[in-house]
Amino acid sequence: MNNFEFYCPTKIVFGKGSIAKLKNLIDKNKKVLMIYGGGSIKKNGVYEQVKNALKDYNLIEFSGIEPNPTYETCMKAVELARKENVDFLLAVGGGSVLDGTKFIAAAVKYKGQEPYELVSKGLDFEEALPVGAVMTLPATGSEMNCAAVISRISTKEKFAMRHPNVYPEFSIIDPETTFSLPIKQVRNGIIDTFVHVMELYATYDVNTPLQDSWALGLVKTLIQETPKVIKNNKDYDAKANICWCATCGLNYWLSLGAVQDWSTHRIGHELTALYGLAHGQSLAIVLPRLWEARKKDKANKLAKLAREAFNCKEIDDLKAADCAIKKTEKFFKSIGMPTKFSDYKINPLEAAQKVKERFEQRGTLLGEDEKVTPQMVYDILKNC
Amino acid sequence: MNNFEFYCPTKIVFGKGSIAKLKNLIDKNKKVLMIYGGGSIKKNGVYEQVKNALKDYNLIEFSGIEPNPTYETCMKAVELARKENVDFLLAVGGGSVLDGTKFIAAAVKYKGQEPYELVSKGLDFEEALPVGAVMTLPATGSEMNCAAVISRISTKEKFAMRHPNVYPEFSIIDPETTFSLPIKQVRNGIIDTFVHVMELYATYDVNTPLQDSWALGLVKTLIQETPKVIKNNKDYDAKANICWCATCGLNYWLSLGAVQDWSTHRIGHELTALYGLAHGQSLAIVLPRLWEARKKDKANKLAKLAREAFNCKEIDDLKAADCAIKKTEKFFKSIGMPTKFSDYKINPLEAAQKVKERFEQRGTLLGEDEKVTPQMVYDILKNC
Repeated sequence: MNNFEFYCPTKIVFGKGSIAKLKNLIDKNKKVLMIYGGGSIKKNGVYEQVKNALKDYNLIEFSGIEPNPTYETCMKAVELARKENVDFLLAVGGGSVLDGTKFIAAAVKYKGQEPYELVSKGLDFEEALPVGAVMTLPATGSEMNCAAVISRISTKEKFAMRHPNVYPEFSIIDPETTFSLPIKQVRNGIIDTFVHVMELYATYDVNTPLQDSWALGLVKTLIQETPKVIKNNKDYDAKANICWCATCGLNYWLSLGAVQDWSTHRIGHELTALYGLAHGQSLAIVLPRLWEARKKDKANKLAKLAREAFNCKEIDDLKAADCAIKKTEKFFKSIGMPTKFSDYKINPLEAAQKVKERFEQRGTLLGEDEKVTPQMVYDILKNC
Repeated sequence: MNNFEFYCPTKIVFGKGSIAKLKNLIDKNKKVLMIYGGGSIKKNGVYEQVKNALKDYNLIEFSGIEPNPTYETCMKAVELARKENVDFLLAVGGGSVLDGTKFIAAAVKYKGQEPYELVSKGLDFEEALPVGAVMTLPATGSEMNCAAVISRISTKEKFAMRHPNVYPEFSIIDPETTFSLPIKQVRNGIIDTFVHVMELYATYDVNTPLQDSWALGLVKTLIQETPKVIKNNKDYDAKANICWCATCGLNYWLSLGAVQDWSTHRIGHELTALYGLAHGQSLAIVLPRLWEARKKDKANKLAKLAREAFNCKEIDDLKAADCAIKKTEKFFKSIGMPTKFSDYKINPLEAAQKVKERFEQRGTLLGEDEKVTPQMVYDILKNC
């Protein structure tokens, strides 16, 4: 096991009816900016629940954070927060709203000229506004980590920031708020969770049997519970399990002392920035072909995944790894998630070339061992 | 899944060489009281590492916290901390030292007449001194939770307190500090961890497949790694895995939204208070017989444990539960841990009667469903 440090002070408030507890979680004297997305929370009752819980608060609103939140939109919220002197940000929505809110929290207090550098250069910063969240979409795990991914329209770029000062103070997760999600978003969220766990697990072995068993336990739970929520979007217990899987998929409990990959995400981010694919869609395209390209390096972990989560019987590790790749793709397809560029009418060679050039320009090497060169990215994407 | 809340702000610093990081974890201006036990840290180099790391600090010491820390000893440390006006407590040792330090942290700031009531009555309190830890014995999980168990010599009582104000700010876990542990303590710690996980897992099913898979993953890791550390007390990787299992065995990650038992611990505490058995020894005696008495209520979870962790093939749940009980006892014995009163020359009938009377006097009902009456405790213990 590698040395590690872990710190996560976010309080999780989980279960039906939890939004009413907001008033116990935010100091009455705080001026709160509630931040949300395109307005779905006004249709599913979440907006009303939040307003009710905070009816005695000085509360203002900012709406319009988009999926794959943009720097441009977030900066409007920064302006509002500064003008109105708010002292608490409440994100209400999915991972995009929460990611945007984390960036806003840091940018409001940032003294420099170009807040985008908090993301693009990963600058350190001393303070941020406190953030709380009402999480309505099981997917990104943003509710219990200190990461945010922000896109910039003007440059078609997408970067991640990570900083302990933007951990949410609390996150409320009420599975009932997900009952009205379009199936497309449920699906994207499940793929996102699956791939998070694989980024944390499918690398090389540094003797972390506990962590590995947890990653595989999460994948098995996902495979078992997913058909239930695809069949019935209001199955409370299945939704609760999927929600908790999504949170635990990226609060890093699974990977402490282990080795992480993240190349699928890094390539997927470029595809989202270039072609507007949803995050989950881009991951489902990249992961199987990336595993094929890296099969030898990941054979040990992929074989364990094959045997424990997918019931593959192959004794040879490389053959078992093939089985894991096949069954992963089958799982994606079983919930209606495409795994090819052709499904989106994107030319693989063009996409491969564009992403390769971006990584070349930045000198980026990906993967747990930095073996994923721009040329390998090209080779992976042309097969997608 | 049941509703739950979770909050754990403890920073974990894990791995070899981590004690040197102490100076990054405690503010230089703080006056630190270092609290430890019987002096083993002076033999294994830990004392020196701590003193080196904090050589520029205003540091005083209190030693002599005993296994099963007593109120009487802790109050001497409280007196010292008050007299010397310390502002930070650093626990260096195992779970007993850390439990004692948590109680001391609360008692120093407590304004009431009888600090013991913080434990015996579970009183609420507003502040406590900050606590940090260098954990040297994988067992109690105290390094990443807010619980403490304190005994009182004068009344032969043992009670647990739990309060968010006594979470350690940080805990350093360096597996190398455990290399010199006597095998007896390694063994007690492994049993303690095993039973913690079972208190969190082996109850009734409320549809928590993720949590269950994690509990079983931990038990499987424990069964796999234990023979390695019994064979070689300096096997770093195996020790690291056992250490992380111990921490995760009681930081509650395994049980969020699930149902907990704790009757084995509650009965075990009485045996420790009455007969001076080590904590792990008392648990190994109680658990198998308690499971026999409660087999029907726990059949579902015990059968899953049997099949997934112990490779039992029984199809019938009750028969599989029998297999789990048998193999658990076999596991305890395989590492040299006795499971009978007779191994300690304690009369089962006498012990059964004494513990029964204590629970009767207090009106205590134990277990996840409060079905463990004083009479059932008697019946369990007379079979031990």
